[in-house]
Amino acid sequence: VKGEFYRCDYLCDTLSVVVIGASGDLAKKKTYPSLFALFRSSYLPEHVQIVGYARSQKTDKDFRATLRDYLAAKCDDDEVIDAFLKKCFYRSGGYDDETAIEKVAMEMAGMEQVSGHEVANRLFYFAIPPSLFTKVAGALKAAATNHNGWSRFIVEKPFGSDLESFETLHESLSDMLEEKETYRIDHYIGKEAVQNLLVMRFANSIFEPLWNRNHIASVVISFKEDFGTKGRGGYFDKSGIIRDVMQNHLMQVLTMFAMEAPARQSGDYIRNEKVKVLQAIPPIRIEDCITGQYISDDEGIEQAYIDDDGVPDDSKTPTFAALVMYINNPRWDGVPFIMRAGKALNERKSEVRIQFKRAPGSSLLFPDTGNGSTLSRNELVMRLQPNEAVYMKMNIKSPGLAGDPVMSELDLSYKTRFPDKFSDLPDAYTRLMLQVLRGDSSAFVRDDELREAWKIFTPLLHAIDDGKIEPIKYKAFSRGPAEFDEMAERHGYVYSGEAYDWNGTA
Amino acid sequence: VKGEFYRCDYLCDTLSVVVIGASGDLAKKKTYPSLFALFRSSYLPEHVQIVGYARSQKTDKDFRATLRDYLAAKCDDDEVIDAFLKKCFYRSGGYDDETAIEKVAMEMAGMEQVSGHEVANRLFYFAIPPSLFTKVAGALKAAATNHNGWSRFIVEKPFGSDLESFETLHESLSDMLEEKETYRIDHYIGKEAVQNLLVMRFANSIFEPLWNRNHIASVVISFKEDFGTKGRGGYFDKSGIIRDVMQNHLMQVLTMFAMEAPARQSGDYIRNEKVKVLQAIPPIRIEDCITGQYISDDEGIEQAYIDDDGVPDDSKTPTFAALVMYINNPRWDGVPFIMRAGKALNERKSEVRIQFKRAPGSSLLFPDTGNGSTLSRNELVMRLQPNEAVYMKMNIKSPGLAGDPVMSELDLSYKTRFPDKFSDLPDAYTRLMLQVLRGDSSAFVRDDELREAWKIFTPLLHAIDDGKIEPIKYKAFSRGPAEFDEMAERHGYVYSGEAYDWNGTA
Amino acid sequence: VKGEFYRCDYLCDTLSVVVIGASGDLAKKKTYPSLFALFRSSYLPEHVQIVGYARSQKTDKDFRATLRDYLAAKCDDDEVIDAFLKKCFYRSGGYDDETAIEKVAMEMAGMEQVSGHEVANRLFYFAIPPSLFTKVAGALKAAATNHNGWSRFIVEKPFGSDLESFETLHESLSDMLEEKETYRIDHYIGKEAVQNLLVMRFANSIFEPLWNRNHIASVVISFKEDFGTKGRGGYFDKSGIIRDVMQNHLMQVLTMFAMEAPARQSGDYIRNEKVKVLQAIPPIRIEDCITGQYISDDEGIEQAYIDDDGVPDDSKTPTFAALVMYINNPRWDGVPFIMRAGKALNERKSEVRIQFKRAPGSSLLFPDTGNGSTLSRNELVMRLQPNEAVYMKMNIKSPGLAGDPVMSELDLSYKTRFPDKFSDLPDAYTRLMLQVLRGDSSAFVRDDELREAWKIFTPLLHAIDDGKIEPIKYKAFSRGPAEFDEMAERHGYVYSGEAYDWNGTA
Amino acid sequence: VKGEFYRCDYLCDTLSVVVIGASGDLAKKKTYPSLFALFRSSYLPEHVQIVGYARSQKTDKDFRATLRDYLAAKCDDDEVIDAFLKKCFYRSGGYDDETAIEKVAMEMAGMEQVSGHEVANRLFYFAIPPSLFTKVAGALKAAATNHNGWSRFIVEKPFGSDLESFETLHESLSDMLEEKETYRIDHYIGKEAVQNLLVMRFANSIFEPLWNRNHIASVVISFKEDFGTKGRGGYFDKSGIIRDVMQNHLMQVLTMFAMEAPARQSGDYIRNEKVKVLQAIPPIRIEDCITGQYISDDEGIEQAYIDDDGVPDDSKTPTFAALVMYINNPRWDGVPFIMRAGKALNERKSEVRIQFKRAPGSSLLFPDTGNGSTLSRNELVMRLQPNEAVYMKMNIKSPGLAGDPVMSELDLSYKTRFPDKFSDLPDAYTRLMLQVLRGDSSAFVRDDELREAWKIFTPLLHAIDDGKIEPIKYKAFSRGPAEFDEMAERHGYVYSGEAYDWNGTA
Repeated sequence: VKGEFYRCDYLCDTLSVVVIGASGDLAKKKTYPSLFALFRSSYLPEHVQIVGYARSQKTDKDFRATLRDYLAAKCDDDEVIDAFLKKCFYRSGGYDDETAIEKVAMEMAGMEQVSGHEVANRLFYFAIPPSLFTKVAGALKAAATNHNGWSRFIVEKPFGSDLESFETLHESLSDMLEEKETYRIDHYIGKEAVQNLLVMRFANSIFEPLWNRNHIASVVISFKEDFGTKGRGGYFDKSGIIRDVMQNHLMQVLTMFAMEAPARQSGDYIRNEKVKVLQAIPPIRIEDCITGQYISDDEGIEQAYIDDDGVPDDSKTPTFAALVMYINNPRWDGVPFIMRAGKALNERKSEVRIQFKRAPGSSLLFPDTGNGSTLSRNELVMRLQPNEAVYMKMNIKSPGLAGDPVMSELDLSYKTRFPDKFSDLPDAYTRLMLQVLRGDSSAFVRDDELREAWKIFTPLLHAIDDGKIEPIKYKAFSRGPAEFDEMAERHGYVYSGEAYDWNGTA
Repeated sequence: VKGEFYRCDYLCDTLSVVVIGASGDLAKKKTYPSLFALFRSSYLPEHVQIVGYARSQKTDKDFRATLRDYLAAKCDDDEVIDAFLKKCFYRSGGYDDETAIEKVAMEMAGMEQVSGHEVANRLFYFAIPPSLFTKVAGALKAAATNHNGWSRFIVEKPFGSDLESFETLHESLSDMLEEKETYRIDHYIGKEAVQNLLVMRFANSIFEPLWNRNHIASVVISFKEDFGTKGRGGYFDKSGIIRDVMQNHLMQVLTMFAMEAPARQSGDYIRNEKVKVLQAIPPIRIEDCITGQYISDDEGIEQAYIDDDGVPDDSKTPTFAALVMYINNPRWDGVPFIMRAGKALNERKSEVRIQFKRAPGSSLLFPDTGNGSTLSRNELVMRLQPNEAVYMKMNIKSPGLAGDPVMSELDLSYKTRFPDKFSDLPDAYTRLMLQVLRGDSSAFVRDDELREAWKIFTPLLHAIDDGKIEPIKYKAFSRGPAEFDEMAERHGYVYSGEAYDWNGTA
Repeated sequence: VKGEFYRCDYLCDTLSVVVIGASGDLAKKKTYPSLFALFRSSYLPEHVQIVGYARSQKTDKDFRATLRDYLAAKCDDDEVIDAFLKKCFYRSGGYDDETAIEKVAMEMAGMEQVSGHEVANRLFYFAIPPSLFTKVAGALKAAATNHNGWSRFIVEKPFGSDLESFETLHESLSDMLEEKETYRIDHYIGKEAVQNLLVMRFANSIFEPLWNRNHIASVVISFKEDFGTKGRGGYFDKSGIIRDVMQNHLMQVLTMFAMEAPARQSGDYIRNEKVKVLQAIPPIRIEDCITGQYISDDEGIEQAYIDDDGVPDDSKTPTFAALVMYINNPRWDGVPFIMRAGKALNERKSEVRIQFKRAPGSSLLFPDTGNGSTLSRNELVMRLQPNEAVYMKMNIKSPGLAGDPVMSELDLSYKTRFPDKFSDLPDAYTRLMLQVLRGDSSAFVRDDELREAWKIFTPLLHAIDDGKIEPIKYKAFSRGPAEFDEMAERHGYVYSGEAYDWNGTA
Repeated sequence: VKGEFYRCDYLCDTLSVVVIGASGDLAKKKTYPSLFALFRSSYLPEHVQIVGYARSQKTDKDFRATLRDYLAAKCDDDEVIDAFLKKCFYRSGGYDDETAIEKVAMEMAGMEQVSGHEVANRLFYFAIPPSLFTKVAGALKAAATNHNGWSRFIVEKPFGSDLESFETLHESLSDMLEEKETYRIDHYIGKEAVQNLLVMRFANSIFEPLWNRNHIASVVISFKEDFGTKGRGGYFDKSGIIRDVMQNHLMQVLTMFAMEAPARQSGDYIRNEKVKVLQAIPPIRIEDCITGQYISDDEGIEQAYIDDDGVPDDSKTPTFAALVMYINNPRWDGVPFIMRAGKALNERKSEVRIQFKRAPGSSLLFPDTGNGSTLSRNELVMRLQPNEAVYMKMNIKSPGLAGDPVMSELDLSYKTRFPDKFSDLPDAYTRLMLQVLRGDSSAFVRDDELREAWKIFTPLLHAIDDGKIEPIKYKAFSRGPAEFDEMAERHGYVYSGEAYDWNGTA
């Protein structure tokens, strides 16, 4: 009825949702609001119960009261909130207390029977650190046997900190959970603009012919934040910017961008293609990476990273990194994929920027006009945040009597084009949770994807962990280390210059 | 200083402009206002004299007064107008009165000498019927010998009404004027969007890879007017819509669209390429053409064409025509070029619409979603008028939880993007006259272009002239004969349907 | 030392080969000769024992004597044969006699220990009907536990006769054997020319740009035999030509031909790509298939199929079939893959013939010269048998004063180019058995390949089995039903005509 | 009747051929034998007279006797030779003796009238130095007016020695002859393999997709002679190898190779395209050229160039040159065209060698196998002489059990493929003379071609003439200066190594 791409068969059945770690930040800020968003859009079945579980003692009433604050920010209709909260329950217990977990499981089974449906599906959301997964998963599985319906387990990153730790974690978890019932979340895959990559590339006939080494000079994937660690430095210091956003989020963007057309949209088809991209990328060489660490800006608005709480004085943890990868396959051989991420930079922006090659043979047709300007290169920019947009920078005739080419752009800003829908774009978590309910694993990270991604990053990460790479200091709110520009240029990226004045989708 | 693409060497010399037929409509509405626009933008040299010549007796003062009305519409600065009118003179005489013409020539030579410049260039604008060209051109040439500087002759269409009449006219004119000093105006070439075709295609690297038979399914070039002949039917009836706009204007658009990259922008390079396109087009077959003639609309706002002044009762002259051409070369073999033009239609619009092929292999990736909708095709639309724009229709992910592809577009509307320049876009005549002054013939129609274009159209035109093709009657303000849609579909054009709601550049 | 592409790690270990069904035709004609070929080329380890197992009672000596005849045909060096036969043993027992099988297993373990190597690998070759697999495999597995080294199982077709029977067989077998230790043989994959497909396509840069829908008009995969069932009609009648060579052998050729570049050559990379091709092919429609059955030739040299031993009088089993498939992916959308196979035809030949599209825009450059001939189309032919060859048909200038294009070809005939190697090209079985030893599964058929292939063929096969498709009678030694030519033409294949006189590689 | 590409309308008319310089070497070795070849193949009309004109006094009989020796080498049928010689006449006179020339013209007119045909065509062959052209052409034109039929003038190189001298020569000649009646011979255009370029490229659909900067890494055009100046050094020293074969012959090969598809084969279509290529080539930079001069080989078989008769002791005239050009258009931007020519080298060979780019993404699929060998690159070689051939070097699977790729080739050797026709391939002069008779100018050099070619070479030639470039000494019968290999490598050419053993078309 909704015209959706995928069917929602689960809507006719009973659904139990179990949120492990229900009293934590993630649960309150993301998990419950996303469940609520699905509830409001009628994407939850009529017979649903949402059981929170955590260590702290709380009544259903108290718990609901806490949740209400978070939900009210999204919705001003109290009746809807009340209806949702009625579905929410709370039980407390230790994460290794098998008896307590079993009790919850039995209570849940009871609720399911009440519904009168034959089929009861179960969704477990792990909002707890990975070290606790195995125990809880084991207990849940044991207590939850012999029911009629699917069980699916959503787990959150981090999935290890290098190849070895990933394999250890994976081995213990895979004893409990089958790969096909495990849904590893990387919320970047759920972003509107990342999901759009698939449609952009394969539902149109105009992009694929250009999407290769013959026409693309370089691809730059950027993630920039305009604030520092803000007191969370102690936590951040253990991972650094590469583990925090590059090895996971930005690699997901890269593989979605670079993969071959899958045979279908659903299931493992897409993940097969993503893995294939990763298999073609050799481990990043140390000389293809620069790292940085921010110091205070001149006004002292942001203190130096090193001065944030919990950061060791001699920390070499990068708050900025830029690196270059090459995909060794027929489509991409020789095209640099330049990845950049940093904190405390001059702007907040996340984007994929494709720079095309110079128009061949154009120097005789469009000779330098004496202004010192030459033809700018085409760029296709997909902005993930803020303000999702797609725009193509291109040369047109300068309007008027002069004939010089001038840079302009073909533009699609979501906010302008879809004003109604844009104000209400679903959160990535909401979108992903819906896909779990639908049983579509395509937007979740498979074990072999993680393995291959860790293979690419582990040698570099170990070199950084071993203090072999000295981070370049950069001022907070700057563009980051100038060495990045040199590196990008060395790999063929051409700056189109400051003269370009567009800020159409800003 | 202006950053122009071409230099303006003539600015340092003296310039004499002679407007033959100065008292006619074209001269007053187009020629003088364009000269005025060049004057205002400092594109005329300091030493310039503009001599009007026509049969009617008038003083300079009277003539200037007439001109002032036309100029005042474009400019409210009286001083500027006065300064321009001081450069304007008027002399009367018959178009075959060689003595009178010689006298003008001598007077002009005098004015030139006064300037003190060594070099004096001469621009002759023929705003008179072609039957009068030869005489005047002969007299002017004879009287104007032995001066130091160039002489250039701007002539206006029609350049014959079929292959034979063109050859006759050309033969007599080419006895007088060399091809390289003859500038045949087709004002369509001067349009902003047509001039932009060259930059769009060759200054960017993203379009050329798509610009061929592998990716383009069809090209539709449309010219639609929302009014009828309005009393000028008697004149129109002698030519019909094909001679009026298709064989000349729209063919110019087609060749600019389809040509190979020229070696340079100036001179004969572009025209060589345009001729080559024409040489690859076989004469249009009668079965690849439909014609129409409008009848009155239901409200009777527009009377039937047949009832307009001077139109014979049994006229079969088409006020609408649609035809299909194929360009038999490696780039375009098999791609239908569908051309459509009509009067008294539902809208006023002139555009080139490129429809790309269906995204290959997309039917498994994006199966029909049950809404009866399938993927729409990509289209690149270049709108020539009104409101110059370029937009690319493409499929994106429907924003929100649903995953269906939806049609959107990458858009570049000149009015929105270049608000300042757009309000003051120069008229096509102004642009072209500037190019004559610069000696760049690339935007003017060469003899072999005309010959080849007439070869393509003459058999069809003769069939129409002989009454062999019955025009289909269509109501004024309708979309024209429904047979057009069938013909377009038969040649592979796919309507993307009414659901598409964009009117971004309207 | 041999410069091989893959390493042969197993050479340092002990190897036991067990041939189940050792007294059968396949074993004697293919299995043992292939093992012998490996032995001669030093591809078997020093410590190897080859244990034959079958129902018939025989001594080692008797068995070796039987084998000697088959080996002597390949080699005239008795010493080498003796050395090989010393490695061969024979044990008899029933195929469901677990005790007997266990005994063999224990004896084998003893032999292995004698070698003194720590690692002992085991290769089981199933030269028995699939209905007997499960039992034997179970007994072998049970008896063969706890040894140090790999166990690999080679199984022979048929792997079911439709989707359902395949799933049944697969389910029972997969209880016993893991997919990764199962090596399903399709000897077509082992053919020199099929293995060459991978190198041809991906080790050269000249083929990939042409290998797609933009340039290829159609692909014809042919298998022609110049003799009938020759007394084996009773056996053949249960399967028919489609199950016999098309669903397996020719589909393997098709997927190797059409797949995307794998990330690596070994392991599952290639099979992943082959499966992906199959997933993009919809089930064959009945209207896209014609079938035939041969009748006697005029001279009566070959009797009618219907008259062969054991063929029912009313048999509708096809001895000839031709069918058209479309691969619904970005590379191949719209390109017909025409498959043809038949017995008792005019020649013996197996080939892949790629017909390219007409040279675009060539009709003005190379107009019909009055001989009624137009330009022929390019064809790339890969002949699998007999006499492996690759040749490209192309147009060149007719040598001499005339300028007409004439068809010629770029040719690579293996026999001519590599006369030494060609005389000794290894049998497909030898090549494949070596790959099993190396542990490279890429040339063996994976379960999902079979599943997808059966999905494509099952509806058609059921229609034939149900007698819904009447085979067209064709004379033995003819080209087969003329309807094939019509079908091929309907899907765009263009015959280049009889004038072409090449028989360079014949 | 002959199925030729072009019609031979002139066969029905009378033809007079006038050979100016009839007693010279060129006339006897090329002009007359070619006329004889046309005569034998019935390509001369029944009514033909061939009048030789030169300074030396001779009777018809003496002259015929001289000719007979040259013709007898080609034909052993005396009757045919006699029949031909009967058509040959000889008249003597000075090249500036207008009276003598007029007399010949009148006599010729008489012969024509005798034939009774209304139309008499005239072909003038200038086998004399260009300094004498103008006078003779003037006298001939003057004397030959008012006849009914065409007049065509074949002229031989050199056409100037730099841009300026060409323009001077051209100006004086163009006063006498119209461009369309001037046929400038460059016999390289008449070569079988060069004429084949057009067919190869445009009559096939497999080459054009590869024929561009995306797929081609470099193009090497070579001309190698295995002997020195052999006493003609004095003459050679005035021009040098660049003027001798590169600026003319090899540039013709380059433009035929690189041009876009012409709209038609005949007339000016091809020459328009060739000019367009030249217009896109900037003048060769001195740093993109190396020159050489041979010294004696170790055995002293060939003496040093400097020691040849008439060569100045301090001559810097290059007997070897290699240079790199870039064609600045969409197809070729960035592809080096490497041109090499030399005398006294290790072999006699003239060829075009296209090296394609490395197979993208192949390093993971085909990793280095330990032999130190990597994949070789594809090369398409068109050998012009000796033994015309086309072959494509490509990688195939090494036949046998090993899987390594190995270099082989698709081959088309004319001698093998067309044994009958090959033995009798017409000389380039014969082919070209036939084209003059047919009035097809496409294979002759137009004035603007020469102008553009001189623009490219003149700065370099002047630098050499001024002694600014020191030729590198190389031993006779060597491969030439080793610096060539470095230069080729610097521009991306990759040697495929010595292991390659093919000599199929040798």
